[in-house]
Amino acid sequence: MRTRFHHMNCSVARALDLLGEWWTILIIREALAGTHRFEDFQQRLGIARNILTSRLRKLTDHGVLERVAAQEGGRRKVYRLTRKGRDLLPVLVALMQWGDRWIIGPGREPLRLVERSSGRGIACMTVQSQEGRALGLGDLKALPGPGFGRGDAARTGCRAETDEAEPP
Amino acid sequence: MRTRFHHMNCSVARALDLLGEWWTILIIREALAGTHRFEDFQQRLGIARNILTSRLRKLTDHGVLERVAAQEGGRRKVYRLTRKGRDLLPVLVALMQWGDRWIIGPGREPLRLVERSSGRGIACMTVQSQEGRALGLGDLKALPGPGFGRGDAARTGCRAETDEAEPP
Repeated sequence: MRTRFHHMNCSVARALDLLGEWWTILIIREALAGTHRFEDFQQRLGIARNILTSRLRKLTDHGVLERVAAQEGGRRKVYRLTRKGRDLLPVLVALMQWGDRWIIGPGREPLRLVERSSGRGIACMTVQSQEGRALGLGDLKALPGPGFGRGDAARTGCRAETDEAEPP
Repeated sequence: MRTRFHHMNCSVARALDLLGEWWTILIIREALAGTHRFEDFQQRLGIARNILTSRLRKLTDHGVLERVAAQEGGRRKVYRLTRKGRDLLPVLVALMQWGDRWIIGPGREPLRLVERSSGRGIACMTVQSQEGRALGLGDLKALPGPGFGRGDAARTGCRAETDEAEPP
């Protein structure tokens, strides 16, 4: 049985609670690439129908996908990313770029993401300051946010790096 | 038994093959936050020792973490992120920001990531052009990369969006 993380007051853990399963992420990758129909998801991922059904339902229940009529008035349904789902683009692109660089290796990338208008490759995803300067790990500090609760530090592992007082 | 994706010629699938497990990502989150010692990982994550041991070993075997002496000449070992591991920062930050926005909700963020030098919040992760313009899903196109193989389209689901010829 898989541990569930919904009790953790941590955005990474809570995101993983919904997404932390391989097929789920690959379904979202397919949806971002323009797949809408059950049969196309099934064929392109080579996933068992019952697993696909349960993952699509979970993503629909959580508002990442929505099930809509393929054509107005038609009965056939397709799956479409919601705003919440489309907002996963930076996560998927960052994961793809990391895999390209460190698993597949430079010069062997299966796909290239380019800007549609110019055909030029996109930039490497970086953490940035408000002014757009690239920031590394050493440039960052984690502070308690508005939802930081008493006892979170020990319980969740989502520690703030400093010992600043918690907000009331 | 979990499906393995190492046969898929897709950087997302291959990255998930290494990272696609909740504890693994949370261990990396902890390491990025500065945790080095086995006991600290264990306490902060509330993870069983045998699971932690196996996940740390996998991450070390794959070069995401390295096991080094805590002090020069000392016998006690700690875990340190390699360059490959530190390069996961954009993935984790993108995942955290998505969780903040869509799962936890604005105004309830447990942690705030700020720029150490200025104390200002970091920017929202976005996919960008080489010039730093934010790009949405509709601005992107996937083309076959140098490692795109004949038959990848049908087999892996890592389709190119166009029907351009494959490179030789």
